[in-house]
Amino acid sequence: MRRVLTALCQTQTMETKEQSLEAAAVQIAEAARQGAKLVVLPEMFCCPYLNKAFVENAEPAGGTVWRFLSEAAKSNEIMLVGGTMPEQSEDGRLFNTCFVFNEKGEQIARHRKLHLYDVDIKDGLKFKESDTFSAGEDITVIDTVWGKLGVMVCFDVRFPELARLMALRGAEAMIIPAVFNMVTGPVYWELLMQARAIDNFTYVLACAPARDESKKFVSYANSIVVSPWGKTVARLDTAPGILYHELDLDMVAAVQAQIPVMSARRADLYSLEWKGGN
Amino acid sequence: MRRVLTALCQTQTMETKEQSLEAAAVQIAEAARQGAKLVVLPEMFCCPYLNKAFVENAEPAGGTVWRFLSEAAKSNEIMLVGGTMPEQSEDGRLFNTCFVFNEKGEQIARHRKLHLYDVDIKDGLKFKESDTFSAGEDITVIDTVWGKLGVMVCFDVRFPELARLMALRGAEAMIIPAVFNMVTGPVYWELLMQARAIDNFTYVLACAPARDESKKFVSYANSIVVSPWGKTVARLDTAPGILYHELDLDMVAAVQAQIPVMSARRADLYSLEWKGGN
Repeated sequence: MRRVLTALCQTQTMETKEQSLEAAAVQIAEAARQGAKLVVLPEMFCCPYLNKAFVENAEPAGGTVWRFLSEAAKSNEIMLVGGTMPEQSEDGRLFNTCFVFNEKGEQIARHRKLHLYDVDIKDGLKFKESDTFSAGEDITVIDTVWGKLGVMVCFDVRFPELARLMALRGAEAMIIPAVFNMVTGPVYWELLMQARAIDNFTYVLACAPARDESKKFVSYANSIVVSPWGKTVARLDTAPGILYHELDLDMVAAVQAQIPVMSARRADLYSLEWKGGN
Repeated sequence: MRRVLTALCQTQTMETKEQSLEAAAVQIAEAARQGAKLVVLPEMFCCPYLNKAFVENAEPAGGTVWRFLSEAAKSNEIMLVGGTMPEQSEDGRLFNTCFVFNEKGEQIARHRKLHLYDVDIKDGLKFKESDTFSAGEDITVIDTVWGKLGVMVCFDVRFPELARLMALRGAEAMIIPAVFNMVTGPVYWELLMQARAIDNFTYVLACAPARDESKKFVSYANSIVVSPWGKTVARLDTAPGILYHELDLDMVAAVQAQIPVMSARRADLYSLEWKGGN
């Protein structure tokens, strides 16, 4: 019985970093009080989703945001998938980075977004993350006491190769800090999360910031948990809040045995291989 | 302007091969009368979806069903994606095969189902295609005057590697003769077709037999056209009928430019390669 009560904290990203961290601290503590042992924050929970803000708020690992996350994991005795933050690397480049901490406050993983969001939708939305960010190079599958967890960030979910490669490494749940917008969110948010779930019959958990219509980049919100059968089993609306769901990771192998999307792959006909780091 | 009026013929599979071919002939002729130039038939349009029936109805290329399809394409001056039939190869093996004919009645492609449907859903459905069929070895992308068309058969759609590899070869529409059942159909039919469409931003067209509740394997039917944006733009219900849609294949590159799922792939980090035949 590999079960874990999971909480997706749909926090409101505030004007200042301090306010954003405070909003996150309140929700993390509440989730822990409710018994959650795995807690997830949204993409850019600490900073508005704008290239200008990414630059202004960038920090290295070990900086204010990183220490906040480490301390929150330790003091609440939880595993914390710390959303994402603009991370400044030692060589000065910026990444859209998810740090993961164990219940002792130790960093156990770092996922730098692999696919940058460079989109130009006619009469819709234009955003070019690569103006600011460099792209990561590593695949992230975390071995935990409950099971194996894959980590992606937002646009990474569009690329089925990545989730497949994580599933082939044993990932049973895909955890995805993400911010979709009001153009792509209504059309693609749930569809993509369900698609990635049924490709491999794993859980998919996507955690977004709450919606704030006054922002330049308005978050679609709708944090969501999709079961290994591809069914949406929990979903928030647009307001700040915490989404709870108890994952049953034994279900993953059980579903994969019934509709054998993993074992029936034609590995003799197509090869899919990871060439990056990990 | 690479446009083509397409017709998915949701025919009723009848008790005898002769009746099934007659039902197909009527719909193909009607579709051609309406101006369709690309016509698609369902998986196993000529034979009940049962292992026993596959064996009893198996024929080689050049046999009755093959000649029927060739003649139907020629006499109606259409390109015909001939659903599937149980094909007996020269060495005696059976395949679940889709033959494609041009408007002169010449065979221009043959897709043998690559992923056999061996499924055992608890309290649901059990089917083992590999009791009867051997699996194909070839990827099928057809170069036509309108654009490039990929062909899959039913369970092939579950494997995102295949559609991606076809899209990387330029496929702009995925054409999928398929039979889902009453367990997986309501949950996965539309979701899978939309998932494959948005993975690559191509059209997806899936053609199923009409529903007949008296059959042992009941077809979900619901033949469907999904646009490159992932939107269901045409769909039938359960009765026999013809689904028309004008494909605009120039739309594919236009969508791929706006949300760059093809060009933003991290080919430096993951390799996906076809090792089979074509």
